[in-house]
Amino acid sequence: MSDLNGYMKRVAELTDNALNRLLPSEETYPPSIHRLMRYSTFAGGKRIRPCLTMAAWEACGGTFGDPFPVDAGAAIEMLHTFSLIHDDLPCMDDDDFRRGKPTAHRAFNEALAVLGGDGLCIIAFEVLARLGRADVIAEIARALGTDGMIGGQVVDIESEGKPVDRQVVEYIHEKKTAALLRASVTIGAMLAGAPAQLTARLAAYGSRIGVAFQVVDDILDEEGTTEQLGKDAGSDRERGKATFPAVCGMDESKRYAETLIRTACEEIAFLDAKGTMLRELAEYIRIRIF
Amino acid sequence: MSDLNGYMKRVAELTDNALNRLLPSEETYPPSIHRLMRYSTFAGGKRIRPCLTMAAWEACGGTFGDPFPVDAGAAIEMLHTFSLIHDDLPCMDDDDFRRGKPTAHRAFNEALAVLGGDGLCIIAFEVLARLGRADVIAEIARALGTDGMIGGQVVDIESEGKPVDRQVVEYIHEKKTAALLRASVTIGAMLAGAPAQLTARLAAYGSRIGVAFQVVDDILDEEGTTEQLGKDAGSDRERGKATFPAVCGMDESKRYAETLIRTACEEIAFLDAKGTMLRELAEYIRIRIF
Repeated sequence: MSDLNGYMKRVAELTDNALNRLLPSEETYPPSIHRLMRYSTFAGGKRIRPCLTMAAWEACGGTFGDPFPVDAGAAIEMLHTFSLIHDDLPCMDDDDFRRGKPTAHRAFNEALAVLGGDGLCIIAFEVLARLGRADVIAEIARALGTDGMIGGQVVDIESEGKPVDRQVVEYIHEKKTAALLRASVTIGAMLAGAPAQLTARLAAYGSRIGVAFQVVDDILDEEGTTEQLGKDAGSDRERGKATFPAVCGMDESKRYAETLIRTACEEIAFLDAKGTMLRELAEYIRIRIF
Repeated sequence: MSDLNGYMKRVAELTDNALNRLLPSEETYPPSIHRLMRYSTFAGGKRIRPCLTMAAWEACGGTFGDPFPVDAGAAIEMLHTFSLIHDDLPCMDDDDFRRGKPTAHRAFNEALAVLGGDGLCIIAFEVLARLGRADVIAEIARALGTDGMIGGQVVDIESEGKPVDRQVVEYIHEKKTAALLRASVTIGAMLAGAPAQLTARLAAYGSRIGVAFQVVDDILDEEGTTEQLGKDAGSDRERGKATFPAVCGMDESKRYAETLIRTACEEIAFLDAKGTMLRELAEYIRIRIF
Protein backbone atom coordinates (compact mmCIF):
# COMPACT_ATOMS: atom_id res chain seq x y z
CA MET A 1 0.00 0.00 0.00
CA SER A 2 3.04 2.32 -0.06
CA ASP A 3 1.99 3.42 -3.54
CA LEU A 4 -1.36 4.57 -2.20
CA ASN A 5 0.19 6.51 0.66
CA GLY A 6 2.49 8.35 -1.70
CA TYR A 7 -0.38 8.99 -4.11
CA MET A 8 -2.59 10.40 -1.36
CA LYS A 9 0.24 12.63 -0.13
CA ARG A 10 0.89 14.01 -3.59
CA VAL A 11 -2.81 14.72 -4.22
CA ALA A 12 -3.18 16.30 -0.77
CA GLU A 13 -0.26 18.61 -1.53
CA LEU A 14 -1.69 19.62 -4.90
CA THR A 15 -5.09 20.16 -3.30
CA ASP A 16 -3.73 22.24 -0.43
CA ASN A 17 -1.75 24.41 -2.86
CA ALA A 18 -4.88 24.92 -4.95
CA LEU A 19 -6.98 25.76 -1.88
CA ASN A 20 -4.34 28.22 -0.76
CA ARG A 21 -4.42 29.88 -4.18
CA LEU A 22 -8.22 29.83 -4.57
CA LEU A 23 -9.31 30.99 -1.11
CA PRO A 24 -8.92 34.69 -0.25
CA SER A 25 -5.99 35.38 2.11
CA GLU A 26 -6.56 35.91 5.83
CA GLU A 27 -5.88 39.62 5.32
CA THR A 28 -8.53 40.07 2.61
CA TYR A 29 -11.39 42.26 3.82
CA PRO A 30 -13.43 41.28 5.77
CA PRO A 31 -10.65 39.23 7.43
CA SER A 32 -12.71 37.38 10.07
CA ILE A 33 -14.61 35.24 7.57
CA HIS A 34 -11.51 34.43 5.54
CA ARG A 35 -9.68 33.35 8.68
CA LEU A 36 -12.60 31.05 9.54
CA MET A 37 -12.79 29.60 6.04
CA ARG A 38 -9.07 28.80 6.06
CA TYR A 39 -9.16 27.52 9.65
CA SER A 40 -11.81 24.94 8.74
CA THR A 41 -10.46 24.08 5.30
CA PHE A 42 -6.93 23.43 6.55
CA ALA A 43 -7.98 21.43 9.61
CA GLY A 44 -6.08 18.31 8.60
CA GLY A 45 -8.40 16.33 6.32
CA LYS A 46 -6.91 13.51 4.24
CA ARG A 47 -8.35 14.93 0.97
CA ILE A 48 -9.85 11.56 0.03
CA ARG A 49 -12.41 13.24 -2.24
CA PRO A 50 -9.76 14.98 -4.39
CA CYS A 51 -7.90 11.63 -4.52
CA LEU A 52 -11.02 10.03 -5.96
CA THR A 53 -11.40 12.83 -8.51
CA MET A 54 -7.77 12.49 -9.61
CA ALA A 55 -7.90 8.68 -9.71
CA ALA A 56 -11.10 8.71 -11.79
CA TRP A 57 -9.60 11.37 -14.09
CA GLU A 58 -6.52 9.17 -14.61
CA ALA A 59 -8.62 6.03 -15.07
CA CYS A 60 -10.35 7.86 -17.94
CA GLY A 61 -7.08 8.81 -19.63
CA GLY A 62 -6.17 12.08 -17.88
CA THR A 63 -2.65 13.03 -16.74
CA PHE A 64 -1.82 13.12 -13.03
CA GLY A 65 -1.69 16.62 -11.56
CA ASP A 66 -3.55 18.42 -14.35
CA PRO A 67 -5.07 21.71 -13.06
CA PHE A 68 -8.61 20.66 -14.07
CA PRO A 69 -9.06 17.77 -11.60
CA VAL A 70 -6.91 19.60 -9.03
CA ASP A 71 -9.15 22.67 -8.98
CA ALA A 72 -12.30 20.52 -9.12
CA GLY A 73 -10.98 18.47 -6.17
CA ALA A 74 -10.25 21.67 -4.25
CA ALA A 75 -13.82 22.86 -4.90
CA ILE A 76 -15.14 19.53 -3.62
CA GLU A 77 -13.08 19.96 -0.43
CA MET A 78 -14.59 23.45 0.04
CA LEU A 79 -18.07 21.96 -0.32
CA HIS A 80 -17.23 19.17 2.11
CA THR A 81 -15.90 21.75 4.61
CA PHE A 82 -19.05 23.87 4.16
CA SER A 83 -21.16 20.86 5.12
CA LEU A 84 -19.00 20.08 8.19
CA ILE A 85 -19.16 23.66 9.48
CA HIS A 86 -22.96 23.75 9.22
CA ASP A 87 -23.37 20.21 10.62
CA ASP A 88 -21.36 21.16 13.71
CA LEU A 89 -23.56 24.20 14.55
CA PRO A 90 -25.37 24.27 17.92
CA CYS A 91 -28.76 23.92 16.16
CA MET A 92 -27.52 20.79 14.33
CA ASP A 93 -25.06 18.30 15.86
CA ASP A 94 -23.75 20.87 18.38
CA ASP A 95 -20.16 19.62 18.20
CA ASP A 96 -17.41 21.46 20.04
CA PHE A 97 -14.50 19.57 18.49
CA ARG A 98 -13.60 18.17 15.10
CA ARG A 99 -10.30 16.41 14.44
CA GLY A 100 -9.22 17.50 17.91
CA LYS A 101 -9.65 21.22 17.19
CA PRO A 102 -12.50 23.54 18.28
CA THR A 103 -15.23 23.64 15.63
CA ALA A 104 -15.66 26.84 13.60
CA HIS A 105 -18.47 28.31 15.71
CA ARG A 106 -16.42 27.63 18.88
CA ALA A 107 -13.17 29.07 17.51
CA PHE A 108 -15.00 32.09 16.00
CA ASN A 109 -18.74 32.58 16.52
CA GLU A 110 -22.00 31.16 15.26
CA ALA A 111 -22.92 33.91 12.79
CA LEU A 112 -19.49 33.72 11.20
CA ALA A 113 -19.72 29.91 11.02
CA VAL A 114 -23.02 30.09 9.12
CA LEU A 115 -21.62 32.74 6.76
CA GLY A 116 -18.23 31.02 6.43
CA GLY A 117 -19.98 27.82 5.36
CA ASP A 118 -22.07 29.80 2.88
CA GLY A 119 -18.93 31.51 1.60
CA LEU A 120 -17.11 28.22 1.00
CA CYS A 121 -20.13 26.83 -0.86
CA ILE A 122 -20.28 29.87 -3.11
CA ILE A 123 -16.53 30.10 -3.81
CA ALA A 124 -16.60 26.40 -4.72
CA PHE A 125 -19.22 27.08 -7.39
CA GLU A 126 -17.18 30.04 -8.65
CA VAL A 127 -14.10 27.80 -8.96
CA LEU A 128 -16.14 25.14 -10.77
CA ALA A 129 -17.67 27.78 -13.05
CA ARG A 130 -14.19 28.91 -14.09
CA LEU A 131 -13.56 25.36 -15.37
CA GLY A 132 -16.23 26.20 -17.94
CA ARG A 133 -18.20 22.97 -17.53
CA ALA A 134 -21.85 23.63 -16.65
CA ASP A 135 -22.56 19.87 -16.74
CA VAL A 136 -20.03 19.29 -13.95
CA ILE A 137 -21.66 22.03 -11.86
CA ALA A 138 -25.10 20.44 -12.35
CA GLU A 139 -23.73 17.03 -11.30
CA ILE A 140 -22.24 18.44 -8.09
CA ALA A 141 -25.30 20.55 -7.28
CA ARG A 142 -27.51 17.46 -7.60
CA ALA A 143 -25.22 15.58 -5.21
CA LEU A 144 -25.40 18.39 -2.67
CA GLY A 145 -29.09 19.34 -2.82
CA THR A 146 -32.18 18.14 -1.02
CA ASP A 147 -32.07 14.84 -2.95
CA GLY A 148 -28.43 14.55 -1.88
CA MET A 149 -26.25 15.72 0.99
CA ILE A 150 -28.67 18.31 2.40
CA GLY A 151 -31.59 15.85 2.26
CA GLY A 152 -29.47 13.27 4.09
CA GLN A 153 -28.60 15.78 6.79
CA VAL A 154 -32.29 16.68 7.25
CA VAL A 155 -33.28 13.03 7.75
CA ASP A 156 -30.22 12.43 9.97
CA ILE A 157 -31.24 15.27 12.30
CA GLU A 158 -34.93 14.40 12.25
CA SER A 159 -34.15 10.74 13.05
CA GLU A 160 -32.08 11.53 16.13
CA GLY A 161 -33.40 9.74 19.20
CA LYS A 162 -36.17 8.05 17.21
CA PRO A 163 -36.50 4.37 16.33
CA VAL A 164 -35.43 3.97 12.69
CA ASP A 165 -35.10 0.99 10.38
CA ARG A 166 -32.28 -0.02 8.04
CA GLN A 167 -33.97 1.69 5.08
CA VAL A 168 -33.75 5.09 6.77
CA VAL A 169 -30.10 4.59 7.70
CA GLU A 170 -29.33 3.55 4.12
CA TYR A 171 -31.06 6.72 2.88
CA ILE A 172 -29.04 8.91 5.25
CA HIS A 173 -25.72 7.28 4.33
CA GLU A 174 -26.42 7.33 0.59
CA LYS A 175 -27.42 10.98 0.59
CA LYS A 176 -25.44 12.59 3.38
CA THR A 177 -22.10 10.90 2.71
CA ALA A 178 -22.09 8.83 -0.47
CA ALA A 179 -23.60 11.44 -2.82
CA LEU A 180 -20.58 13.79 -2.63
CA LEU A 181 -18.05 10.92 -2.69
CA ARG A 182 -19.80 9.56 -5.78
CA ALA A 183 -19.74 13.02 -7.40
CA SER A 184 -16.01 13.30 -6.59
CA VAL A 185 -15.54 10.22 -8.79
CA THR A 186 -17.96 11.14 -11.59
CA ILE A 187 -16.63 14.65 -12.12
CA GLY A 188 -13.12 13.22 -12.56
CA ALA A 189 -14.56 11.08 -15.37
CA MET A 190 -16.66 13.92 -16.83
CA LEU A 191 -13.72 16.34 -16.90
CA ALA A 192 -11.66 13.69 -18.72
CA GLY A 193 -14.41 13.42 -21.34
CA ALA A 194 -15.35 9.84 -20.45
CA PRO A 195 -18.31 8.34 -22.34
CA ALA A 196 -21.59 8.13 -20.37
CA GLN A 197 -21.36 4.36 -19.91
CA LEU A 198 -17.93 4.55 -18.30
CA THR A 199 -19.04 7.44 -16.07
CA ALA A 200 -22.04 5.36 -14.97
CA ARG A 201 -19.82 2.44 -13.93
CA LEU A 202 -17.59 4.80 -11.98
CA ALA A 203 -20.69 6.35 -10.39
CA ALA A 204 -21.80 2.90 -9.19
CA TYR A 205 -18.31 2.34 -7.73
CA GLY A 206 -18.52 5.78 -6.06
CA SER A 207 -21.92 5.11 -4.49
CA ARG A 208 -20.75 1.83 -3.00
CA ILE A 209 -17.51 3.09 -1.51
CA GLY A 210 -19.41 6.16 -0.34
CA VAL A 211 -21.91 4.14 1.70
CA ALA A 212 -19.07 1.89 2.90
CA PHE A 213 -17.18 5.00 4.05
CA GLN A 214 -20.05 6.00 6.34
CA VAL A 215 -20.70 2.45 7.60
CA VAL A 216 -17.00 2.30 8.51
CA ASP A 217 -17.33 5.67 10.25
CA ASP A 218 -20.26 4.29 12.27
CA ILE A 219 -18.19 1.25 13.22
CA LEU A 220 -15.21 3.40 14.23
CA ASP A 221 -17.43 5.61 16.34
CA GLU A 222 -18.27 2.48 18.37
CA GLU A 223 -14.88 0.78 18.37
CA GLY A 224 -12.30 3.54 17.87
CA THR A 225 -10.47 5.43 20.60
CA THR A 226 -10.97 9.13 21.25
CA GLU A 227 -7.41 9.68 20.03
CA GLN A 228 -8.09 7.91 16.71
CA LEU A 229 -11.34 9.79 16.19
CA GLY A 230 -10.47 13.31 17.36
CA LYS A 231 -13.78 13.23 19.23
CA ASP A 232 -15.38 11.10 21.94
CA ALA A 233 -15.93 7.44 20.99
CA GLY A 234 -19.53 6.28 21.25
CA SER A 235 -20.84 9.81 20.67
CA ASP A 236 -23.25 8.65 17.93
CA ARG A 237 -24.88 6.17 20.28
CA GLU A 238 -25.08 8.68 23.12
CA ARG A 239 -27.03 11.15 21.06
CA GLY A 240 -29.24 8.50 19.48
CA LYS A 241 -27.86 8.89 15.94
CA ALA A 242 -29.21 6.61 13.24
CA THR A 243 -26.19 4.38 12.54
CA PHE A 244 -25.67 1.04 10.86
CA PRO A 245 -24.46 -0.83 13.97
CA ALA A 246 -27.51 0.51 15.85
CA VAL A 247 -29.99 -1.02 13.39
CA CYS A 248 -28.08 -4.10 12.14
CA GLY A 249 -25.50 -4.90 14.79
CA MET A 250 -21.72 -4.76 14.50
CA ASP A 251 -21.19 -8.06 12.67
CA GLU A 252 -23.67 -7.31 9.91
CA SER A 253 -22.26 -3.76 9.60
CA LYS A 254 -18.76 -5.14 8.98
CA ARG A 255 -20.06 -7.73 6.53
CA TYR A 256 -22.01 -5.00 4.70
CA ALA A 257 -18.97 -2.71 4.48
CA GLU A 258 -16.90 -5.57 3.06
CA THR A 259 -19.58 -6.44 0.51
CA LEU A 260 -19.86 -2.82 -0.61
CA ILE A 261 -16.09 -2.49 -1.08
CA ARG A 262 -15.89 -5.81 -2.95
CA THR A 263 -18.78 -5.05 -5.29
CA ALA A 264 -17.45 -1.50 -5.84
CA CYS A 265 -14.17 -3.00 -7.07
CA GLU A 266 -16.01 -5.57 -9.21
CA GLU A 267 -17.91 -2.69 -10.84
CA ILE A 268 -14.62 -1.30 -12.20
CA ALA A 269 -12.73 -4.59 -12.69
CA PHE A 270 -12.89 -4.04 -16.47
CA LEU A 271 -10.55 -1.05 -16.07
CA ASP A 272 -7.69 -3.46 -15.26
CA ALA A 273 -4.46 -1.60 -14.48
CA LYS A 274 -6.12 1.77 -15.07
CA GLY A 275 -8.36 1.12 -12.06
CA THR A 276 -5.56 0.20 -9.64
CA MET A 277 -5.62 3.43 -7.67
CA LEU A 278 -9.44 3.43 -7.42
CA ARG A 279 -9.31 -0.13 -6.07
CA GLU A 280 -6.59 0.82 -3.59
CA LEU A 281 -8.66 3.79 -2.40
CA ALA A 282 -11.61 1.43 -1.83
CA GLU A 283 -9.31 -0.86 0.13
CA TYR A 284 -8.07 2.14 2.13
CA ILE A 285 -11.64 2.75 3.30
CA ARG A 286 -12.01 -0.91 4.28
CA ILE A 287 -8.76 -1.34 6.23
CA ARG A 288 -9.66 1.38 8.68
CA ILE A 289 -11.68 -1.27 10.50
CA PHE A 290 -10.15 -4.62 9.61
CA MET B 1 -46.46 54.06 -14.29
CA SER B 2 -49.29 51.68 -15.20
CA ASP B 3 -47.00 50.02 -17.74
CA LEU B 4 -44.51 49.22 -15.02
CA ASN B 5 -47.12 47.73 -12.71
CA GLY B 6 -48.38 45.45 -15.46
CA TYR B 7 -44.82 44.51 -16.38
CA MET B 8 -43.90 43.66 -12.80
CA LYS B 9 -47.07 41.57 -12.43
CA ARG B 10 -46.34 39.59 -15.58
CA VAL B 11 -42.73 38.93 -14.57
CA ALA B 12 -43.80 37.96 -11.04
CA GLU B 13 -46.27 35.47 -12.49
CA LEU B 14 -43.67 33.95 -14.82
CA THR B 15 -41.17 33.80 -11.93
CA ASP B 16 -43.64 32.19 -9.55
CA ASN B 17 -44.57 29.58 -12.15
CA ALA B 18 -40.88 28.83 -12.72
CA LEU B 19 -40.19 28.58 -8.98
CA ASN B 20 -43.15 26.25 -8.60
CA ARG B 21 -41.78 24.05 -11.38
CA LEU B 22 -38.15 24.16 -10.27
CA LEU B 23 -38.56 23.64 -6.50
CA PRO B 24 -39.38 20.12 -5.25
CA SER B 25 -43.02 19.75 -4.16
CA GLU B 26 -43.96 19.86 -0.48
CA GLU B 27 -44.52 16.10 -0.60
CA THR B 28 -41.05 15.29 -1.93
CA TYR B 29 -38.96 13.42 0.64
CA PRO B 30 -37.81 14.80 3.05
CA PRO B 31 -40.96 16.98 3.11
CA SER B 32 -40.05 19.33 6.00
CA ILE B 33 -37.23 21.09 4.15
CA HIS B 34 -39.26 21.43 0.95
CA ARG B 35 -42.13 22.96 2.90
CA LEU B 36 -39.71 25.47 4.44
CA MET B 37 -38.11 26.31 1.10
CA ARG B 38 -41.52 26.98 -0.46
CA TYR B 39 -42.79 28.84 2.60
CA SER B 40 -39.92 31.33 2.39
CA THR B 41 -39.77 31.55 -1.40
CA PHE B 42 -43.48 32.29 -1.75
CA ALA B 43 -43.66 34.81 1.09
CA GLY B 44 -44.90 37.64 -1.10
CA GLY B 45 -41.81 39.29 -2.57
CA LYS B 46 -42.25 41.66 -5.52
CA ARG B 47 -39.69 39.79 -7.66
CA ILE B 48 -37.83 43.00 -8.49
CA ARG B 49 -34.64 41.05 -9.25
CA PRO B 50 -36.28 38.89 -11.95
CA CYS B 51 -37.83 42.10 -13.35
CA LEU B 52 -34.33 43.56 -13.69
CA THR B 53 -33.08 40.38 -15.39
CA MET B 54 -35.97 40.41 -17.87
CA ALA B 55 -35.70 44.15 -18.55
CA ALA B 56 -31.92 43.88 -19.16
CA TRP B 57 -32.48 40.84 -21.39
CA GLU B 58 -35.03 42.80 -23.44
CA ALA B 59 -32.81 45.90 -23.54
CA CYS B 60 -30.17 43.67 -25.17
CA GLY B 61 -32.54 42.34 -27.81
CA GLY B 62 -34.17 39.37 -26.05
CA THR B 63 -37.88 38.51 -26.23
CA PHE B 64 -40.11 39.02 -23.19
CA GLY B 65 -40.92 35.80 -21.33
CA ASP B 66 -38.18 33.63 -22.83
CA PRO B 67 -37.40 30.65 -20.53
CA PHE B 68 -33.72 31.64 -20.21
CA PRO B 69 -34.18 34.91 -18.28
CA VAL B 70 -37.24 33.46 -16.51
CA ASP B 71 -35.30 30.52 -15.05
CA ALA B 72 -32.29 32.73 -14.31
CA GLY B 73 -34.58 35.18 -12.50
CA ALA B 74 -36.13 32.33 -10.51
CA ALA B 75 -32.64 31.17 -9.50
CA ILE B 76 -31.81 34.72 -8.38
CA GLU B 77 -34.96 34.75 -6.23
CA MET B 78 -33.89 31.44 -4.64
CA LEU B 79 -30.49 32.96 -3.85
CA HIS B 80 -32.13 36.09 -2.44
CA THR B 81 -34.42 33.92 -0.27
CA PHE B 82 -31.42 31.85 0.91
CA SER B 83 -29.77 35.07 2.10
CA LEU B 84 -32.92 36.27 3.90
CA ILE B 85 -33.40 32.96 5.73
CA HIS B 86 -29.82 32.96 7.01
CA ASP B 87 -29.86 36.70 7.84
CA ASP B 88 -32.96 36.20 10.00
CA LEU B 89 -31.37 33.42 12.13
CA PRO B 90 -31.03 33.96 15.89
CA CYS B 91 -27.22 34.13 15.58
CA MET B 92 -27.55 36.86 12.92
CA ASP B 93 -30.32 39.51 12.94
CA ASP B 94 -32.60 37.36 15.13
CA ASP B 95 -35.77 38.43 13.36
CA ASP B 96 -39.11 36.82 14.23
CA PHE B 97 -41.09 38.32 11.38
CA ARG B 98 -40.54 39.11 7.73
CA ARG B 99 -43.23 40.63 5.55
CA GLY B 100 -45.65 40.10 8.43
CA LYS B 101 -45.09 36.32 8.57
CA PRO B 102 -42.98 34.32 11.05
CA THR B 103 -39.43 33.87 9.74
CA ALA B 104 -38.35 30.39 8.61
CA HIS B 105 -36.66 29.40 11.87
CA ARG B 106 -39.74 30.53 13.81
CA ALA B 107 -42.25 28.76 11.55
CA PHE B 108 -40.09 25.59 11.40
CA ASN B 109 -36.86 25.34 13.41
CA GLU B 110 -33.33 26.64 13.31
CA ALA B 111 -31.61 23.54 11.91
CA LEU B 112 -34.13 23.34 9.09
CA ALA B 113 -33.71 27.07 8.39
CA VAL B 114 -29.94 26.69 7.99
CA LEU B 115 -30.40 23.65 5.74
CA GLY B 116 -33.32 25.17 3.83
CA GLY B 117 -31.17 28.20 3.02
CA ASP B 118 -28.34 25.91 1.92
CA GLY B 119 -30.79 23.90 -0.19
CA LEU B 120 -32.11 26.99 -1.99
CA CYS B 121 -28.57 28.15 -2.72
CA ILE B 122 -27.63 24.78 -4.19
CA ILE B 123 -30.80 24.32 -6.26
CA ALA B 124 -30.27 27.81 -7.66
CA PHE B 125 -26.83 26.78 -8.93
CA GLU B 126 -28.31 23.60 -10.39
CA VAL B 127 -30.94 25.64 -12.25
CA LEU B 128 -28.27 28.03 -13.53
CA ALA B 129 -26.05 25.10 -14.55
CA ARG B 130 -28.87 23.70 -16.67
CA LEU B 131 -28.84 26.97 -18.66
CA GLY B 132 -25.39 25.80 -19.80
CA ARG B 133 -23.62 29.11 -19.19
CA ALA B 134 -20.65 28.74 -16.85
CA ASP B 135 -19.83 32.46 -17.26
CA VAL B 136 -23.24 33.40 -15.85
CA ILE B 137 -22.65 31.13 -12.86
CA ALA B 138 -19.24 32.71 -12.21
CA GLU B 139 -20.81 36.19 -12.37
CA ILE B 140 -23.48 35.29 -9.83
CA ALA B 141 -21.06 33.45 -7.53
CA ARG B 142 -18.79 36.52 -7.46
CA ALA B 143 -21.78 38.70 -6.52
CA LEU B 144 -22.72 36.34 -3.68
CA GLY B 145 -19.30 35.51 -2.21
CA THR B 146 -17.14 37.11 0.44
CA ASP B 147 -16.35 40.03 -1.90
CA GLY B 148 -20.11 40.36 -2.41
CA MET B 149 -23.29 39.61 -0.48
CA ILE B 150 -21.70 37.39 2.18
CA GLY B 151 -18.88 39.89 2.78
CA GLY B 152 -21.46 42.66 3.19
CA GLN B 153 -23.40 40.61 5.70
CA VAL B 154 -20.23 39.92 7.71
CA VAL B 155 -19.41 43.64 7.95
CA ASP B 156 -23.06 44.48 8.66
CA ILE B 157 -23.14 42.13 11.63
CA GLU B 158 -19.71 43.10 12.90
CA SER B 159 -20.61 46.81 12.72
CA GLU B 160 -23.75 46.47 14.81
CA GLY B 161 -23.68 48.79 17.81
CA LYS B 162 -20.31 50.24 16.81
CA PRO B 163 -19.52 53.74 15.54
CA VAL B 164 -19.06 53.47 11.75
CA ASP B 165 -18.34 56.01 9.04
CA ARG B 166 -19.96 56.53 5.66
CA GLN B 167 -17.31 54.41 3.93
CA VAL B 168 -18.29 51.32 5.93
CA VAL B 169 -22.00 51.85 5.26
CA GLU B 170 -21.26 52.26 1.55
CA TYR B 171 -19.31 48.99 1.63
CA ILE B 172 -22.15 47.15 3.34
CA HIS B 173 -24.78 48.48 0.94
CA GLU B 174 -22.69 47.84 -2.16
CA LYS B 175 -21.88 44.29 -1.16
CA LYS B 176 -24.85 43.09 0.85
CA THR B 177 -27.61 44.52 -1.36
CA ALA B 178 -26.28 46.03 -4.57
CA ALA B 179 -24.07 43.11 -5.67
CA LEU B 180 -27.00 40.74 -6.30
CA LEU B 181 -29.20 43.46 -7.82
CA ARG B 182 -26.32 44.34 -10.15
CA ALA B 183 -25.87 40.65 -11.07
CA SER B 184 -29.62 40.39 -11.76
CA VAL B 185 -29.08 43.04 -14.45
CA THR B 186 -25.78 41.76 -15.87
CA ILE B 187 -26.91 38.16 -16.30
CA GLY B 188 -29.92 39.38 -18.32
CA ALA B 189 -27.42 41.06 -20.64
CA MET B 190 -25.01 38.11 -20.66
CA LEU B 191 -27.76 35.60 -21.48
CA ALA B 192 -28.85 37.85 -24.36
CA GLY B 193 -25.28 37.77 -25.71
CA ALA B 194 -24.64 41.48 -25.14
CA PRO B 195 -21.13 42.76 -25.94
CA ALA B 196 -18.87 43.41 -22.91
CA GLN B 197 -19.15 47.20 -23.19
CA LEU B 198 -22.95 47.14 -23.06
CA THR B 199 -22.90 44.70 -20.14
CA ALA B 200 -20.50 47.04 -18.29
CA ARG B 201 -22.86 50.01 -18.71
CA LEU B 202 -25.75 47.93 -17.43
CA ALA B 203 -23.59 46.77 -14.51
CA ALA B 204 -22.92 50.41 -13.56
CA TYR B 205 -26.67 51.08 -13.72
CA GLY B 206 -27.27 47.99 -11.55
CA SER B 207 -24.73 49.03 -8.89
CA ARG B 208 -26.27 52.47 -8.56
CA ILE B 209 -29.88 51.37 -8.28
CA GLY B 210 -28.71 48.59 -5.95
CA VAL B 211 -27.16 50.99 -3.47
CA ALA B 212 -30.16 53.32 -3.87
CA PHE B 213 -32.45 50.39 -3.06
CA GLN B 214 -30.74 49.89 0.31
CA VAL B 215 -30.54 53.61 1.12
CA VAL B 216 -34.30 53.79 0.46
CA ASP B 217 -34.78 50.76 2.72
CA ASP B 218 -32.85 52.55 5.47
CA ILE B 219 -35.04 55.65 5.02
CA LEU B 220 -38.23 53.59 5.10
CA ASP B 221 -37.09 51.83 8.25
CA GLU B 222 -37.02 55.28 9.90
CA GLU B 223 -40.08 56.83 8.29
CA GLY B 224 -42.35 53.93 7.30
CA THR B 225 -45.15 52.43 9.36
CA THR B 226 -45.07 48.90 10.75
CA GLU B 227 -47.86 48.03 8.33
CA GLN B 228 -45.89 49.26 5.31
CA LEU B 229 -42.76 47.44 6.40
CA GLY B 230 -44.14 44.13 7.70
CA LYS B 231 -41.81 44.66 10.69
CA ASP B 232 -41.34 47.26 13.42
CA ALA B 233 -40.35 50.73 12.16
CA GLY B 234 -37.10 52.05 13.61
CA SER B 235 -35.79 48.52 14.20
CA ASP B 236 -32.46 49.29 12.47
CA ARG B 237 -31.82 52.20 14.83
CA GLU B 238 -32.83 50.20 17.89
CA ARG B 239 -30.31 47.47 17.18
CA GLY B 240 -27.57 49.91 16.21
CA LYS B 241 -27.46 48.91 12.54
CA ALA B 242 -25.05 50.75 10.24
CA THR B 243 -27.49 52.73 8.06
CA PHE B 244 -27.20 55.72 5.77
CA PRO B 245 -29.48 58.04 7.80
CA ALA B 246 -27.45 57.13 10.90
CA VAL B 247 -24.15 58.31 9.41
CA CYS B 248 -25.32 61.10 7.02
CA GLY B 249 -28.70 62.22 8.27
CA MET B 250 -32.06 61.91 6.55
CA ASP B 251 -31.72 64.84 4.13
CA GLU B 252 -28.38 63.73 2.76
CA SER B 253 -29.67 60.13 2.50
CA LYS B 254 -32.60 61.26 0.34
CA ARG B 255 -30.35 63.44 -1.79
CA TYR B 256 -27.92 60.53 -2.24
CA ALA B 257 -30.71 58.12 -3.25
CA GLU B 258 -31.95 60.64 -5.83
CA THR B 259 -28.45 61.16 -7.21
CA LEU B 260 -27.87 57.43 -7.53
CA ILE B 261 -31.15 56.89 -9.37
CA ARG B 262 -30.51 59.84 -11.69
CA THR B 263 -26.94 58.79 -12.55
CA ALA B 264 -28.08 55.18 -12.99
CA CYS B 265 -30.55 56.33 -15.62
CA GLU B 266 -27.94 58.56 -17.27
CA GLU B 267 -25.65 55.53 -17.52
CA ILE B 268 -28.17 53.81 -19.80
CA ALA B 269 -29.60 56.90 -21.53
CA PHE B 270 -28.01 55.73 -24.81
CA LEU B 271 -30.41 52.77 -24.86
CA ASP B 272 -33.26 55.21 -25.66
CA ALA B 273 -36.59 53.39 -25.94
CA LYS B 274 -34.97 50.01 -25.26
CA GLY B 275 -34.09 51.23 -21.77
CA THR B 276 -37.57 52.44 -20.82
CA MET B 277 -38.38 49.59 -18.48
CA LEU B 278 -34.98 49.76 -16.74
CA ARG B 279 -35.52 53.49 -16.15
CA GLU B 280 -39.03 52.87 -14.83
CA LEU B 281 -37.68 50.21 -12.45
CA ALA B 282 -35.13 52.73 -11.17
CA GLU B 283 -37.94 55.25 -10.69
CA TYR B 284 -39.97 52.58 -8.87
CA ILE B 285 -37.16 52.28 -6.30
CA ARG B 286 -37.09 56.07 -5.88
CA ILE B 287 -40.81 56.71 -5.47
CA ARG B 288 -41.08 54.44 -2.46
CA ILE B 289 -39.82 57.42 -0.44
CA PHE B 290 -40.78 60.54 -2.39
